[in-house]
Amino acid sequence: MKTVKKAAAIGGGLIGGGWIARMLLAGVDVNVHDPDPEAERKVSTLIVNAERAMARLWPGQTTQAKGQLKFCGSLAEAVADADLIQESTPERIEIKCAVHREIGEAASKDAVIGSSTSGLLPSEFQADSALADRIMVAHPYNPVYLLPVVEIVGGAKTSDAAIARAMEAYAEIGMKPVHIKKEIDAFVGDRLLEAMWRESLWLVKDGVATAETIDDVVRYGLGLRYAQMGQFMTYRLGGGEAGMEHFLKQFGPSLSWPWTKLMDTPEWTDELIETLAEQSDAQAGGLSITELERIRDNNLVDILKALHRNDWGAGSLLKNPVVMAADQNAEKMIPDGPEMITFDGLVDPDWADYNDHMTEFRYLEVFSKSTDTLLDWIGGGPAYARGGSSWYTIETHIRHLDEVAIGKPIMVKSRLVQHDEKRLHLFHDMHGGDDMGLLATGEHMLMHVDMDAGRSSPMPEAMKASLDTIAERQSGLPMPDSRGASIGIRAKPKS
Amino acid sequence: MKTVKKAAAIGGGLIGGGWIARMLLAGVDVNVHDPDPEAERKVSTLIVNAERAMARLWPGQTTQAKGQLKFCGSLAEAVADADLIQESTPERIEIKCAVHREIGEAASKDAVIGSSTSGLLPSEFQADSALADRIMVAHPYNPVYLLPVVEIVGGAKTSDAAIARAMEAYAEIGMKPVHIKKEIDAFVGDRLLEAMWRESLWLVKDGVATAETIDDVVRYGLGLRYAQMGQFMTYRLGGGEAGMEHFLKQFGPSLSWPWTKLMDTPEWTDELIETLAEQSDAQAGGLSITELERIRDNNLVDILKALHRNDWGAGSLLKNPVVMAADQNAEKMIPDGPEMITFDGLVDPDWADYNDHMTEFRYLEVFSKSTDTLLDWIGGGPAYARGGSSWYTIETHIRHLDEVAIGKPIMVKSRLVQHDEKRLHLFHDMHGGDDMGLLATGEHMLMHVDMDAGRSSPMPEAMKASLDTIAERQSGLPMPDSRGASIGIRAKPKS
Repeated sequence: MKTVKKAAAIGGGLIGGGWIARMLLAGVDVNVHDPDPEAERKVSTLIVNAERAMARLWPGQTTQAKGQLKFCGSLAEAVADADLIQESTPERIEIKCAVHREIGEAASKDAVIGSSTSGLLPSEFQADSALADRIMVAHPYNPVYLLPVVEIVGGAKTSDAAIARAMEAYAEIGMKPVHIKKEIDAFVGDRLLEAMWRESLWLVKDGVATAETIDDVVRYGLGLRYAQMGQFMTYRLGGGEAGMEHFLKQFGPSLSWPWTKLMDTPEWTDELIETLAEQSDAQAGGLSITELERIRDNNLVDILKALHRNDWGAGSLLKNPVVMAADQNAEKMIPDGPEMITFDGLVDPDWADYNDHMTEFRYLEVFSKSTDTLLDWIGGGPAYARGGSSWYTIETHIRHLDEVAIGKPIMVKSRLVQHDEKRLHLFHDMHGGDDMGLLATGEHMLMHVDMDAGRSSPMPEAMKASLDTIAERQSGLPMPDSRGASIGIRAKPKS
Repeated sequence: MKTVKKAAAIGGGLIGGGWIARMLLAGVDVNVHDPDPEAERKVSTLIVNAERAMARLWPGQTTQAKGQLKFCGSLAEAVADADLIQESTPERIEIKCAVHREIGEAASKDAVIGSSTSGLLPSEFQADSALADRIMVAHPYNPVYLLPVVEIVGGAKTSDAAIARAMEAYAEIGMKPVHIKKEIDAFVGDRLLEAMWRESLWLVKDGVATAETIDDVVRYGLGLRYAQMGQFMTYRLGGGEAGMEHFLKQFGPSLSWPWTKLMDTPEWTDELIETLAEQSDAQAGGLSITELERIRDNNLVDILKALHRNDWGAGSLLKNPVVMAADQNAEKMIPDGPEMITFDGLVDPDWADYNDHMTEFRYLEVFSKSTDTLLDWIGGGPAYARGGSSWYTIETHIRHLDEVAIGKPIMVKSRLVQHDEKRLHLFHDMHGGDDMGLLATGEHMLMHVDMDAGRSSPMPEAMKASLDTIAERQSGLPMPDSRGASIGIRAKPKS
């Protein structure tokens, strides 16, 4: 059940805009207030980036209905009816205090009020608000629309009920809220980052390693572990079956060896800044920030997909929008007219073959999704399969009629050719978007199978009735030309 | 060109065994010396894990020829003819000194001699060796067979030539060697880890967060960034188009704010150890080390695949063994007899559908790989496509005859049905391993295409001759039964 219906974003910069994009794509309406005249443009850039990432995450699948975006002239208007209010204003305590006082005057007393601050303490900026009990830190990581963690930190006046509600609300928009029990400067993540950052600065200053070398040690080594397991779990694995206590007793003491220079901060000289900036430029190898952001998002999406496949960590938070829709709504609507669009999406760049067209087997992946869509309509999808019966494809015939370019829109229109009590004969036409013509056809025979008995079986009456409805709606359409065609090199006609 | 033909591993524990597995799978012969009577068993466990990971990394593809593994009774025998010697003995300076002296008496003067030590300094253990100039630290990360980074640190006597050769040699076995310019305790990676670890210990000791919360902040947040970009690059992105220097000037000073307690080490009391151990047990949720290792390796493989897809970071180091073989050897051998096995591999667990069988479109992926194998044999693979012509599939007919279980072996035998100067009619039979019978058939029509002209074109004579050879060898085989079959619901025969 959806409990966050409307959100308010106070501030729409890099972080605020990231929040807005995440919320909209989770189907939440968002009111934005930001006095910056550039805010609307900045926010729309972040939404485009987020939509691009979603298209890569669930290629060829229609995402949930997006929320409505509204820019509000006043803070009071933006927060008035919001369930979740996210404040992402500049990191200055006097601004935070003023904004939260203003929110406290206009917001609902049940709203969650989260601040994106990465360093200021909630007790300090909640004090003057009439809704101090609802105010907490909700600190995300950039890019907010892809990274799920959010650190929840209450202040002296924050109520337990507000924290509990926040844990629910942020999870609902696909995040991993973690509750930090004590209010400390920089919370947990920035503490860890700062520790590494100080050490890195010393390594550069002392000429031990360059920025690139240090980053390479991370991304070719320990960072690959950290995308899935943190340091405690990693050390647990290092300790083996003897257990964590054994590991700690064995390795703990080496911590007091005089390795690090952490006790000190390198002096922040122009020379050090110049060295760092030069090394950073060299490392970027001429790639612009926009290019690097694109690369980062592609990598993040693919790492999230990798973890999703294993139902682990950040990947386990992802919900496939099609499966969700099917599970939530077994009685999906069959289209009213004869035209049955069963797939509508972009060709994933990952689907390229070495000739840079959509690779062969992805045609069948698309047709397979089309078949799934139709099965959803008749109540024969994943939820049905959990009941012990399912539809098996027994035969497939694909004609590749034209090259399919990557990144381009494609659409599949499906025809129910014939059905009886156990079988389903489907014909899919794959079209390019924008009237690009017929690209391929897929013809499929499916059998209804009782999986426990391991043999074909008649489908339920209701399912048969749904198929009858589709057949009825499509009865005026001509049969596909190539239906029932066979493969072979035929004698050429005489010329 | 392969320059590392034989390696020696002195020590075959968790790290030594990981090295051995990596080297063998890179096609390098490995001599092992380890006095531990359990070494052979431990090493073989690690090789099994590494092979499992490779099967997941390149599903259904035969990997390169594995190197030969040999256990040697003496260190001298193991190192005598090795190009690369990896020492992974216990972290005690007197052991390292003795082992390196012994290696220095028996090894080739051109060998690279790397130590896996994570803390001892090369100057201290190289001093007494007759080959001190070849000795350096080559510090890897666990699991060595999957994580590519290796920190190369020379000592006072290490020659530049030896370092240069090591950079080459470790890259050849798929690693990312990074050269650390100064010899410091703990090198770079362990410095970073130690900084985070100290900070984490304080957070637990002060009751700010549990081990699980701290790990969650990592794996749901900053760790997802670190699998692809390190801290410098991440901050560069945070700074936006204004550049790194601007970012540093703006944010640098906050480093001297008194956030961390890094200057101090928490006292290593029994109470702290107990707290940490308890939190670690809770976090593991009953999963054994073996289960966690399995999960870790699956995640690592899938993260590496994700990065490989984007040709970025650790993913850009991976080389597809089939494409490599095709590129290296355009003149592949057509099998001598009539039986043409074009695919032989396991069904990847990722290929499961929601009924836990191999999902529909993966059948076509397998048949597509089979077609690619045959195209390689006739010189029509990726390398040929780079010349401007290629084979396009124009039609496909699949019959799904039996369920294909995940994790099981499958094999495809292919039949050239017919060919003319532009077309190729193939028929693939997919069998289960161990005589599991016929699972599916794939029938395919391919067209030879001049990609520049955008139309069909005759194939080169040599390619045609290769097809004639295959046709000749298969001329005694009967034609497949279902060739040319069409799809349709037929009237049932009268009973």
